[in-house]
Amino acid sequence: MKKILKAILPAGFKANGIACGLKKSGKPDLALLYSEIPALAAAKFTTNSIIAAPLIVSQKHLKSAKKIQAVLVNSGNANCFTGKAGLKDAQAAAGYAARELKIARNAVLVNSTGIIGKRLDITKIKQGIPELVSGLSASGIQKAEKAIMTTDTFAKEISLNLRIGSKVVHLCGIAKGAGMIAPDMATMLCFIMTDAKITKQALGKALSAAVDKSFNCISVDGCMSTNDTVLVLANAAAGNSVISGGKDLEDFSGALECVCLDLAKMVVKDAEGATKFIQIDVCQAKDFQEARKIALSIANSALFKTAVFGQNPNFGRVAAAVGSSGFKIKEDQLKIKLGSLKQKQVKLKVTLSRGKASATVYTSDLTPEYIKINAQYN
Amino acid sequence: MKKILKAILPAGFKANGIACGLKKSGKPDLALLYSEIPALAAAKFTTNSIIAAPLIVSQKHLKSAKKIQAVLVNSGNANCFTGKAGLKDAQAAAGYAARELKIARNAVLVNSTGIIGKRLDITKIKQGIPELVSGLSASGIQKAEKAIMTTDTFAKEISLNLRIGSKVVHLCGIAKGAGMIAPDMATMLCFIMTDAKITKQALGKALSAAVDKSFNCISVDGCMSTNDTVLVLANAAAGNSVISGGKDLEDFSGALECVCLDLAKMVVKDAEGATKFIQIDVCQAKDFQEARKIALSIANSALFKTAVFGQNPNFGRVAAAVGSSGFKIKEDQLKIKLGSLKQKQVKLKVTLSRGKASATVYTSDLTPEYIKINAQYN
Repeated sequence: MKKILKAILPAGFKANGIACGLKKSGKPDLALLYSEIPALAAAKFTTNSIIAAPLIVSQKHLKSAKKIQAVLVNSGNANCFTGKAGLKDAQAAAGYAARELKIARNAVLVNSTGIIGKRLDITKIKQGIPELVSGLSASGIQKAEKAIMTTDTFAKEISLNLRIGSKVVHLCGIAKGAGMIAPDMATMLCFIMTDAKITKQALGKALSAAVDKSFNCISVDGCMSTNDTVLVLANAAAGNSVISGGKDLEDFSGALECVCLDLAKMVVKDAEGATKFIQIDVCQAKDFQEARKIALSIANSALFKTAVFGQNPNFGRVAAAVGSSGFKIKEDQLKIKLGSLKQKQVKLKVTLSRGKASATVYTSDLTPEYIKINAQYN
Repeated sequence: MKKILKAILPAGFKANGIACGLKKSGKPDLALLYSEIPALAAAKFTTNSIIAAPLIVSQKHLKSAKKIQAVLVNSGNANCFTGKAGLKDAQAAAGYAARELKIARNAVLVNSTGIIGKRLDITKIKQGIPELVSGLSASGIQKAEKAIMTTDTFAKEISLNLRIGSKVVHLCGIAKGAGMIAPDMATMLCFIMTDAKITKQALGKALSAAVDKSFNCISVDGCMSTNDTVLVLANAAAGNSVISGGKDLEDFSGALECVCLDLAKMVVKDAEGATKFIQIDVCQAKDFQEARKIALSIANSALFKTAVFGQNPNFGRVAAAVGSSGFKIKEDQLKIKLGSLKQKQVKLKVTLSRGKASATVYTSDLTPEYIKINAQYN
């Protein structure tokens, strides 16, 4: 398994990103991912009951189409809480892309990120699509990365190659994050492309497992988004013997988890206003779910996060957060080890003496800059 | 029912507050509440599984003693996460007060508030107790109020008189709050004294109902404390016919709820770093619990709170918080009405069209000052 800290599109994929005018800043805001060969898709969406319009459309397309060929993503507007008009806009966006690409509308998935509750300017998207499609290229992924950013300060990308039988299979993932990041819902936007040949069932299983240990183990501000999506497209261009189980699936799942975890960590490193990257290890828990919930209870404690920002070691706030997690943890069962707060990377280890399971959760500190960014965001 | 925005001790109660040296600032840090007549007590404590030592001692005393005569409270140190040594300190503190007051040790309740995880300086408390006891007076409640404050910027006090049969019954409550305030656990410290004659069962029932609609309906930072206590002492000095049910209990419960709600609102108004007092009304819910949970989901959204701080109306963040509350609220079931953010008092009304129940929750905005206070707190 070889990891490259840059996105390199697997065989058969193309991408592009342009500025169509949704962002007042004039920065790129419309991205397209395209697979020449129709690809199998697996996806995880937000569990928020208020779901953005493009997610409703994408869920429908994932059900009705056997294969997916394109993903259209805009930043600058989440197209959420926009009612029936928003739903029509999302459908129209998919339709414009499908027409230009000469493929079926339900082979196009759509996604949006940005402010919630404002109508999307669909005309700008329509006008941008010809340029977006004509500029598609095998080296266009960096343009796409930039076009899905909102308050992100750097693009999040990774590639990974692994051997399946006699063939080399490639994975490439990009993500955006920054704020409204809370776990248990496949957080933020993440698009993974692979040329692996794999069954639909195996792909779904691998994605669920990977997301559980990565995007569901991070939290910036405990706020669950309405647009979160992690999507993987597999176009089988690598020509490997089909992955359906056994060691091949194990290897592929490991690679997919690696891609997801690296991207999830990048999202936390780029958390709005953050000055610290915090790793919370909870050990000797009864099971993984218990360990993760306790780690997240700490990760979502505003008081713990401000203490880390202030470089002020405060074990009491960790203990209070553990105790409020809903599990009956007794004081004498609890050991807390907090690393130096002077480093940019902070490690906290909580040992419970209740069992053998553990979980690692990643979070950031809470800073005045986070408040400044979100007090002004509009 | 007559409300007075000042604490006036009911018949038979005395109080005092002094500086015994626990706070480096030299500010008052040791308070004593005393009833000449042994009083019935009802209490609600934190549901955090990490419980401060004084709460463990107080819970024991509440079980073993039929009546309570004194409450000793220190600020500057929470005596929590301090192990067996901390437990001995709390027991010793109760013992010193009992000896000086010439009452049984289990007639004394103890409470602490301040930093978690540091050993209490019990010698300073021991040395302070003679002065504390000798200074007890019927007009000493304002001194006690000041001695239980931590980051509070004003003392929280209220009195209320109501008629029960032919007698006037008095209630008086004081509270401290400021940070680590989250609901569903009888938040922060609150002491209520009444000269009402009431059965133990009726007192407990009235307190549970009052706390549910008051302290369990506020949130500053979503962080559950380890020391939260709401305590009511009833010494029967008013000589009313005993309250055990019916209209008398309804009236007394209403008065107790009024005291709790007013103090709870004061806690939110004095929230660390807050510039806004936010009232969230959730209407047309299926039941009170659903309405309250949804209101709290909004109240605990860092993004909603920063938007209010920035005077930046953002309906999307309200919708996202509602959708993440765990109830299957659909977009077309949801109406959001947000009042002007330019005022110090902000009103948010969320209408669900799911039923007839409603709940009101109070919270504050999230500001850079909150982070400053908590980054430096130690």
